[in-house]
Amino acid sequence: MVELDEILASIHDRIVDEADWGIPAQYIPELATIPADQFAISVCLADGSTHSAGSANTPFSIQSISKVFALIATLGRIGEQLWTRVGREPTGTAFDSIGILESDAGRPRNPFINAGAIVTTDALLSGREPREALAETLGLIRAMAESDDIYINDRVARSEERTGARNKALAHYLSSHGNLEHEPEKLLGTYFHQCAIEMTTEQLAKAGRALARLPDAPRTLSKEHAKRVNALMMSCGHYDASGEFAYRVGLPGKSGVGGGILIVAPHKASIGIWSPGLDGYGNSKAGTRAAVMLSRATEWSVF
Amino acid sequence: MVELDEILASIHDRIVDEADWGIPAQYIPELATIPADQFAISVCLADGSTHSAGSANTPFSIQSISKVFALIATLGRIGEQLWTRVGREPTGTAFDSIGILESDAGRPRNPFINAGAIVTTDALLSGREPREALAETLGLIRAMAESDDIYINDRVARSEERTGARNKALAHYLSSHGNLEHEPEKLLGTYFHQCAIEMTTEQLAKAGRALARLPDAPRTLSKEHAKRVNALMMSCGHYDASGEFAYRVGLPGKSGVGGGILIVAPHKASIGIWSPGLDGYGNSKAGTRAAVMLSRATEWSVF
Amino acid sequence: MVELDEILASIHDRIVDEADWGIPAQYIPELATIPADQFAISVCLADGSTHSAGSANTPFSIQSISKVFALIATLGRIGEQLWTRVGREPTGTAFDSIGILESDAGRPRNPFINAGAIVTTDALLSGREPREALAETLGLIRAMAESDDIYINDRVARSEERTGARNKALAHYLSSHGNLEHEPEKLLGTYFHQCAIEMTTEQLAKAGRALARLPDAPRTLSKEHAKRVNALMMSCGHYDASGEFAYRVGLPGKSGVGGGILIVAPHKASIGIWSPGLDGYGNSKAGTRAAVMLSRATEWSVF
Amino acid sequence: MVELDEILASIHDRIVDEADWGIPAQYIPELATIPADQFAISVCLADGSTHSAGSANTPFSIQSISKVFALIATLGRIGEQLWTRVGREPTGTAFDSIGILESDAGRPRNPFINAGAIVTTDALLSGREPREALAETLGLIRAMAESDDIYINDRVARSEERTGARNKALAHYLSSHGNLEHEPEKLLGTYFHQCAIEMTTEQLAKAGRALARLPDAPRTLSKEHAKRVNALMMSCGHYDASGEFAYRVGLPGKSGVGGGILIVAPHKASIGIWSPGLDGYGNSKAGTRAAVMLSRATEWSVF
Repeated sequence: MVELDEILASIHDRIVDEADWGIPAQYIPELATIPADQFAISVCLADGSTHSAGSANTPFSIQSISKVFALIATLGRIGEQLWTRVGREPTGTAFDSIGILESDAGRPRNPFINAGAIVTTDALLSGREPREALAETLGLIRAMAESDDIYINDRVARSEERTGARNKALAHYLSSHGNLEHEPEKLLGTYFHQCAIEMTTEQLAKAGRALARLPDAPRTLSKEHAKRVNALMMSCGHYDASGEFAYRVGLPGKSGVGGGILIVAPHKASIGIWSPGLDGYGNSKAGTRAAVMLSRATEWSVF
Repeated sequence: MVELDEILASIHDRIVDEADWGIPAQYIPELATIPADQFAISVCLADGSTHSAGSANTPFSIQSISKVFALIATLGRIGEQLWTRVGREPTGTAFDSIGILESDAGRPRNPFINAGAIVTTDALLSGREPREALAETLGLIRAMAESDDIYINDRVARSEERTGARNKALAHYLSSHGNLEHEPEKLLGTYFHQCAIEMTTEQLAKAGRALARLPDAPRTLSKEHAKRVNALMMSCGHYDASGEFAYRVGLPGKSGVGGGILIVAPHKASIGIWSPGLDGYGNSKAGTRAAVMLSRATEWSVF
Repeated sequence: MVELDEILASIHDRIVDEADWGIPAQYIPELATIPADQFAISVCLADGSTHSAGSANTPFSIQSISKVFALIATLGRIGEQLWTRVGREPTGTAFDSIGILESDAGRPRNPFINAGAIVTTDALLSGREPREALAETLGLIRAMAESDDIYINDRVARSEERTGARNKALAHYLSSHGNLEHEPEKLLGTYFHQCAIEMTTEQLAKAGRALARLPDAPRTLSKEHAKRVNALMMSCGHYDASGEFAYRVGLPGKSGVGGGILIVAPHKASIGIWSPGLDGYGNSKAGTRAAVMLSRATEWSVF
Repeated sequence: MVELDEILASIHDRIVDEADWGIPAQYIPELATIPADQFAISVCLADGSTHSAGSANTPFSIQSISKVFALIATLGRIGEQLWTRVGREPTGTAFDSIGILESDAGRPRNPFINAGAIVTTDALLSGREPREALAETLGLIRAMAESDDIYINDRVARSEERTGARNKALAHYLSSHGNLEHEPEKLLGTYFHQCAIEMTTEQLAKAGRALARLPDAPRTLSKEHAKRVNALMMSCGHYDASGEFAYRVGLPGKSGVGGGILIVAPHKASIGIWSPGLDGYGNSKAGTRAAVMLSRATEWSVF
């Protein structure tokens, strides 16, 4: 598809020209030093083709995008039962807010804020060793992306374990409300390793095909689960800037503090974007701008 | 379309059989006494046909659904300038919460909570008499529905003026932050009259065609505005149950405490539903259930 | 008492020398233009003597100090019944916070924040015309101060009526929870007139003698009520800087945004201080400093 | 003093007759099973005499009352420097609220809520081993009480270490804001051991003499520190029922979830009360009632 290649090249050039990169996540030492002026975009289409611009083969830390895959794995394992422990509403507060968790008596609002993902991981871990649960999530991602070249960056994981005081507070707080089955320390080990999975935008776009229900996507989740995960990404995928993303891009998406964004255009395309500099909400600054440009150029908005 | 008629008839029968109606809004005296066991659903399709089941010609108080039309009128008048005064994010709190307005220093999170709609109405009123602004909103609705048989119920409006202490508190609070141009009392007169507009589900479905961009819809708003209003309905259309509606229905929708719901399936259908009994979030109880059934039967979800 | 005169003179000189005045209340137009570099302090002792320094005969707007007298009048009228509608706890939030009122479902935490004083005034007004209730409060103050030369500044009252949007929001919000008997507008008229009472520091110190239970105080309230009002002033008299005042001064006190502070040293002294410039909490900046100096010099702390 | 003995006997009899005991703290397993129908009261007077009623020689877990002694030890060690890390204001929220700590960006409001006491303990620990800091606090208490028969209940400490998820959440949250010098786990070990100190009401009353500045009190803290600790107990000693205690008792006091209350009547008396059943705020139910009775009978209120 010639036209799409041109669109992606043009987006790449504008992003590089504008050079408005934001600042990489400072609270994770291993991510803080990554050069901000990087950009990649990859798109998988319904015809089976993949199109990219920028450094689409550079692996980056998917961080919170892993919450999508952990959710898919957990829904696959225990189904709707998960919702007895986590809600499905946007929060209106920051991704690591502990005040809202107190207001909600230890039941996280949704699986895409940190507290909700910790509970999801707890449910996924149930009755197994951390490495088994991790192997399942990683295996799922590899199957969805049809690539075995996807790994956990152990240094990033350990960097988060050392510095993740906010997540430890969330886990102990959940525990105090009886909403965790496992010891916070053990559970967070799994959680931090999930966050430290690295993918390229091309792998990310390929992994999203099942959510977009593209014809060539491997059969990794049911249509019903795909629709529901997409709905959650639309409502809650960008923390307290989720409404803004819906308004400006009009597609379900999930961001991570590593600078990645996974975007789904149902039946049409699956998109991976990466640029490590963040805006004030913890979403990729240049990446979000690229998403807006792509949505305008393609008219893929679901609205 | 024979099949859709059957779907609607079946939904109607299940809703009536289940008889799980909820309770009409108690805080507006004129609405409190309406019998709860009423139901209507109407659907306009892209082929120009309209299909209904139940009492589709009974007018009901559209209440907060009027926020959609006030927003369309205001965007038409002042465009994106509105967003300097109102946000586009879901709140995670009740539709009439004043605490969140304090946290946000008097800038409402979105135009579909009460505080946001009061600011929208203030912007729409700018430099005009209340009856002129009201005539514009009512005229817009009539044009969108292609029906002149749509009126304001003055008794309901006056009932709200007498009892709307929460809205008065919101208006004065907005005023204390300099986010209102007009006197709260004058402004609320306009606001309460907008809320007291009465429509049938058939009229409501017809009025939604422009948002769904159906071929026969009158040209009343731009494609761009339609998409953006749809995005806001998806994120914020059901107060603090918006995520739940997105998850279970998968379509942009806006509810009102009169028991109505306007739902948009872009390019496919526009839907009006009504049942006056409410759930704990202030959304129509049977109406929401009907929306879930319709979405499942038609697979119109955008996800 | 020679020593006390020297202490007061020394405090006056230090305050004037330091010239760290703060800024008069900006949100009440009539108060905003008052020169900040004014200071007065008056002390009544158990021996019946009164001692002053600075402009102790300049009348100033007592503002929130009137909440003390309104509370005394209301306790005299309906007794402990008041506590079914207002609490007795410090808030930890600003004097005009509406979010905490929402959390508390319309029951103000204490009678010394605005919402609590509005409910107190509502209880005092019960079954009477505004001017009767106002006459009672003013009469009580005159009797406590043994001076008829105390008046309401009508221009200040009207200035607040025009600009008091935050208080109007509080009143309507209280009303929405059924915690007001009267129409907010009528009630606020009384409330703003109470706030606009003007006194000198000498009159204020004299009015405080009954709270300090000095021998020569007119019999205007019971010992039990005096102790309880003192306790409330200690816990809640300086908004969200009440703990600080208790820590540094160690005496019950009540401040007003007119720059006045009433302080009670039980059995020992009653103190009126005034300096119109405020700190960030809305308490008199120089006045609070003077209170700390006086407490240190006299060792009147109750602790 | 015959009269005081009669007062105490009468209070004891009324408390036992009323048999309105409340429920012992359920979240600490070792405390949950203590029989609720126990009561003791001890009073030290300025004349050096000690008077008791009930089981005044039964040791109980002082829990949060230890916060007073930790504060005294810390003020003695680093002085006013502590206030750069902790505030002096009441919170208006529960003793273990984490939402308010988020609002305050990790700076606890006062040293008598859990978060504040954890920071105080962190400051006390500075540069030392846990057992050294513990030895200091325990040594201070023994010196103040003039009794070596005061010990840490290790089973209670370990019970809290196993179950104290809420405190772990607070500690990690403080850590995430850089307001802890030590590892949360190590620090909480010290904190839980402090809370697990056991005293009798007689020992507690004796330990309070220095705060009341009774003539026979050992010289363990300066007059200035005594006054300030008393002020903090008055403002913040009973969590979100502090205003109520000030109103009804009129004396500085500090409660613990073990059912103890330390009360200070400056220059007059020091009081220890114990009854293990709690009210909804986590304060001793019968103990608080006894404090009200004692204050009324003795007229020791500072107001």
